[in-house]
Amino acid sequence: MRLLLLSNSTNFGGTFLGHAGDWLRAHLSGARNVLFVPFAAVRFSYDEFVRKVAEQFQPFGCVVQGIHAAPDPVAAVRACDAIAVGGGNTFRLLARLYEFGLLDPIRQRVQDGAPYVGWSAGSNVACPTIRTTNDMPVVEPPSFDALGLVPFQINPHFTDAAIPNHGGETRSERLLEFLELNPTMPVLSLREGTALLADDRGMQLLGNQPALGFVHGQTARELAPGPFAGF
Amino acid sequence: MRLLLLSNSTNFGGTFLGHAGDWLRAHLSGARNVLFVPFAAVRFSYDEFVRKVAEQFQPFGCVVQGIHAAPDPVAAVRACDAIAVGGGNTFRLLARLYEFGLLDPIRQRVQDGAPYVGWSAGSNVACPTIRTTNDMPVVEPPSFDALGLVPFQINPHFTDAAIPNHGGETRSERLLEFLELNPTMPVLSLREGTALLADDRGMQLLGNQPALGFVHGQTARELAPGPFAGF
Repeated sequence: MRLLLLSNSTNFGGTFLGHAGDWLRAHLSGARNVLFVPFAAVRFSYDEFVRKVAEQFQPFGCVVQGIHAAPDPVAAVRACDAIAVGGGNTFRLLARLYEFGLLDPIRQRVQDGAPYVGWSAGSNVACPTIRTTNDMPVVEPPSFDALGLVPFQINPHFTDAAIPNHGGETRSERLLEFLELNPTMPVLSLREGTALLADDRGMQLLGNQPALGFVHGQTARELAPGPFAGF
Repeated sequence: MRLLLLSNSTNFGGTFLGHAGDWLRAHLSGARNVLFVPFAAVRFSYDEFVRKVAEQFQPFGCVVQGIHAAPDPVAAVRACDAIAVGGGNTFRLLARLYEFGLLDPIRQRVQDGAPYVGWSAGSNVACPTIRTTNDMPVVEPPSFDALGLVPFQINPHFTDAAIPNHGGETRSERLLEFLELNPTMPVLSLREGTALLADDRGMQLLGNQPALGFVHGQTARELAPGPFAGF
């Protein structure tokens, strides 16, 4: 499988996918027809989302089609060269994937070799479940079970910072709650501007900042950019 | 019905329920046996949680029992004078309420006149669903449907502030996503240190800061402390 799972689309003060151009270019090399899944969008249109992504991917020689516009979405998954899943609300994205019966077809197509690109919610749904999303549960999917393309959870947009003078759990505290109730499932926390790349050569952590690995019963561990052996 | 729904248990730099003493004293007046639901706790014990709450409620003449320690939790709900539901993780809390079959009994007991106190997750579950919680979905409840003691959603710990130099949605953006997908359901956002009181005389917003009302298609509206007519 070939996966590029980005923490986020847009760095603070940066442009849409601007920090990920080289990674995307390499990952999508040879893929002409990219099927884009815009279902995480809530307050902007799917067409608008497709246009934004198409503009970024066009220099790589990719033609981007929105899955919402395909007459037969499952056939579109089977026919595409690569799949990209954008960010937004993870619950909405997963609910729609169930609604259109797309989880099995996408999983199969990626297992068959089509490169998968996700950012934010699109990285969350690549995990076994969406239990480590940061999003508000504005709609109820039939299940939290997701694509399971990696055997651990990702927490995108990871930060140790909190809102000044405000209560509530920090991100690390939330992830420790996750581990307490899901002790066999580790979490890879990706800071903004970083990503996980997986292909036949193994896994790599991309970006200028370390990831943070959370394993039940252990202290959270910084994971330097470069080869990642998993948990 | 008599409801006291607090945004939070602990103000920044404050003590546990310290800001809410007068409200709790008045609300629990005449209630001796308070049944406490500690199921939102994830990383601390239910017994510890009960002890903390009992210490706060003891000056009001209340005896606090943890529902987890009751031989028959449903019978304990029926027999208590008041019900208190503490904060923590909303998904965990709701999952346990389903597991022990407590939603209908608690709803019934409160409709029959037992005062209900909730804070944070305990205020979330008093709403029709938990779709406006801020918590991470670390476990999957059978449904997002909750007690429905009020006919609108509450967002506790509300803040307009965001983590500096970090992407991701603000709280208001998240709530606008909720409204987009749930257009008939308004949201009452309670800043920290504030609460909603409901009894036979109507509803009151408590605290020194305004609440924020979100209604689909309208600009969010500040709601001053004092009588609240609903949406």
